[in-house]
Amino acid sequence: MPTRDDCLQLDARDPLAGLREAFDLPPGVVYLDGNSLGPRPKAAAERAAQVVVQEWGQGLIRSWNDAGWFTLPRRLGDRLAPLIGAGPGEVLVTDTTSVNLFKLLAAMLAHQHARQPRRRAIVCERGNFPTDLHIAQGLAKLLQQGHELRLVDRAEDIPAALADDVAVLMLTQVDYRTGALHDMAALTALAHGHGALALWDLAHSAGALPVDLRGADADAAVGCTYKYLNGGPGSPAFLWVAPRWQAVFETPLSGWWGHAEPFAMEPQYRPDPGVGRFLCGTQAIVSQSLVACGLDVFERTDMACLRTKSLALTDLFIALVEERCAGFPLELVTPREHARRGSQVSWRHPQGYAVMQALIAAGVIGDYREPGILRFGFTPLYTRFVDVWEAVEALRDVLQNETWREARFQTRSAVT
Amino acid sequence: MPTRDDCLQLDARDPLAGLREAFDLPPGVVYLDGNSLGPRPKAAAERAAQVVVQEWGQGLIRSWNDAGWFTLPRRLGDRLAPLIGAGPGEVLVTDTTSVNLFKLLAAMLAHQHARQPRRRAIVCERGNFPTDLHIAQGLAKLLQQGHELRLVDRAEDIPAALADDVAVLMLTQVDYRTGALHDMAALTALAHGHGALALWDLAHSAGALPVDLRGADADAAVGCTYKYLNGGPGSPAFLWVAPRWQAVFETPLSGWWGHAEPFAMEPQYRPDPGVGRFLCGTQAIVSQSLVACGLDVFERTDMACLRTKSLALTDLFIALVEERCAGFPLELVTPREHARRGSQVSWRHPQGYAVMQALIAAGVIGDYREPGILRFGFTPLYTRFVDVWEAVEALRDVLQNETWREARFQTRSAVT
Repeated sequence: MPTRDDCLQLDARDPLAGLREAFDLPPGVVYLDGNSLGPRPKAAAERAAQVVVQEWGQGLIRSWNDAGWFTLPRRLGDRLAPLIGAGPGEVLVTDTTSVNLFKLLAAMLAHQHARQPRRRAIVCERGNFPTDLHIAQGLAKLLQQGHELRLVDRAEDIPAALADDVAVLMLTQVDYRTGALHDMAALTALAHGHGALALWDLAHSAGALPVDLRGADADAAVGCTYKYLNGGPGSPAFLWVAPRWQAVFETPLSGWWGHAEPFAMEPQYRPDPGVGRFLCGTQAIVSQSLVACGLDVFERTDMACLRTKSLALTDLFIALVEERCAGFPLELVTPREHARRGSQVSWRHPQGYAVMQALIAAGVIGDYREPGILRFGFTPLYTRFVDVWEAVEALRDVLQNETWREARFQTRSAVT
Repeated sequence: MPTRDDCLQLDARDPLAGLREAFDLPPGVVYLDGNSLGPRPKAAAERAAQVVVQEWGQGLIRSWNDAGWFTLPRRLGDRLAPLIGAGPGEVLVTDTTSVNLFKLLAAMLAHQHARQPRRRAIVCERGNFPTDLHIAQGLAKLLQQGHELRLVDRAEDIPAALADDVAVLMLTQVDYRTGALHDMAALTALAHGHGALALWDLAHSAGALPVDLRGADADAAVGCTYKYLNGGPGSPAFLWVAPRWQAVFETPLSGWWGHAEPFAMEPQYRPDPGVGRFLCGTQAIVSQSLVACGLDVFERTDMACLRTKSLALTDLFIALVEERCAGFPLELVTPREHARRGSQVSWRHPQGYAVMQALIAAGVIGDYREPGILRFGFTPLYTRFVDVWEAVEALRDVLQNETWREARFQTRSAVT
């Protein structure tokens, strides 16, 4: 079994070790929650000051052109594209994941409905992040056309759910709780084989592992920039539309930014000929500008290198927990196979919430998700092998000394 | 006619003069475009640094609770409420105006459709800001229920358009081109008298003049924080729902933030019992945090004082232009009556675009809107009477010396 010194050796040989310097990480903290909110790229402080003081303060209205504010969603999209296997002119950074999902799902359902009205099912996993399910439910209710959200309990049940009445297969590539990774190409091919379209949520895969939307022949995708892409709290989401659908899909959120000529100020909507039609209203420029700082760091490496280190980190974490926390009621809920694992590791524990609070109090920040799941994200841009060691030692201490009994009490008081 | 000295006297006696110090205004510029993008409150620089460096950088994921990020949309909404005649728990600062309009219009159409299916018309002005029309068009197309966008050419035509098939009267209180102000209470009463609901867009009235949503008995409203409220470029929009409708209207954009218990992570959507159901996805926190800096300034005055100065500024501007630019082909398109005027003054000129470019080059920043309209916003928080004088002198110079002939050429080159 690896020792702490072995971990230090791994760090010394890590070709990505230098990237950690690009981030501001509070002293005394092992941060394993970059799958919820990525840490701050150091450059973001200066960039925020530049946007607020110079671009807004001095440039004022002129900055819409002079500082390129109007084109930010497209420019950031083009920079993000290589991380998800997309090309230029295919990705927009805009709005929220929920809103983008609504735009794309509505466009896809309308497209199917116009051609094959019997296709009114949306196949999805019950364990998907709730907003994906909620958005589909709200859309189905709005449409009043008999659309059905068909939920499967296990990934293995997806093929059987793909009947001839399915309009869209809507999946999140990496499960937010378990960290299980879908085979995007295989499932997309399966959907297409049944006449359904495939819509992917990349919230936990963009920036976490190599994604190949074009290679998988996917139809559309959404994702998040504030997790593995380190864009800042609630930073704008992204969307991708396959080139073959860009001039076909119609957005229901037809706001003026998606108009073919926004400044012609025409009463009648005419969509932008390309992916730009999926823009809607004026974007939150300060938050949006900071997304660039996160993307800058990715240009110093590539997703294949990041994936190699990510798997080494999660392998090490699983091995160390199983050795050093043996005997405690921890159940691994993340797949052991590399091909089925994202960049996080989750364990179920009967007192999961309290254990995580105690860990956070001890300086190891992961997070908790119902039911009973301790979730740890491993982001190779800044996570060291020795961080894995320290995290496991802290977990062992919490379990052995039962500090979680006290932590739970403190936290519940703090919430009330 | 007033002289420059008279203007200086007016500034010396202005009880709001001290508020100008709260803003960063570039030297050598008369900024009359706060109706498009408000200037930077000085406090926004420090606040941005605090959110980025401290809350994000040091607090990391903990700031969702510790820094109150989760409750920002509601807390900012409660602070904004008094400016628009709303109460606590009625307003959210979230998403964009276009997205919020979609949520509310969809909710209102569904409510009407369920009770009186014949009500399928949305009455609107053809001259409304295009995104309002585009959103209604996209929604009608999505619904496939035969909804019609009924556009009137003149405000006087609204009553005749309110037939018994109207579901919603959707108006912008102050016209973005002409600055004309609607009588919200009278038009809302008229809509209600015909069984229609009234949805108001306050983009050019919130923070510009006293708005009384409750007093007018309006049903719902949206608006913008980056114009008169000085929230920053593209800062999040707001929405208001009358208390009587909060538990009735259903949002089609049913994202997880609008769930009754977001962290229960339930597959089935259950709406928040109040206005919170109109939240959708995770918000852009850095941009959102800066909205507070704009609202802070409003707490040092009230809308009645601001309205008095606003009308004095726009009266002065109209009088000075008519005297000092007499003989040039400027046509006033803003109503002269106070009761029908917002906080901007617009003039049509055959070479409007070039004239505005020349004015901007001369340090007077207004903006241009098709067709041929020079638009000047007067924002009493920081606009001085002497600024009005300087703007008119600059306009006179541009017209007299025809500097716009050169400016037009320069600008067109710059765009290509």
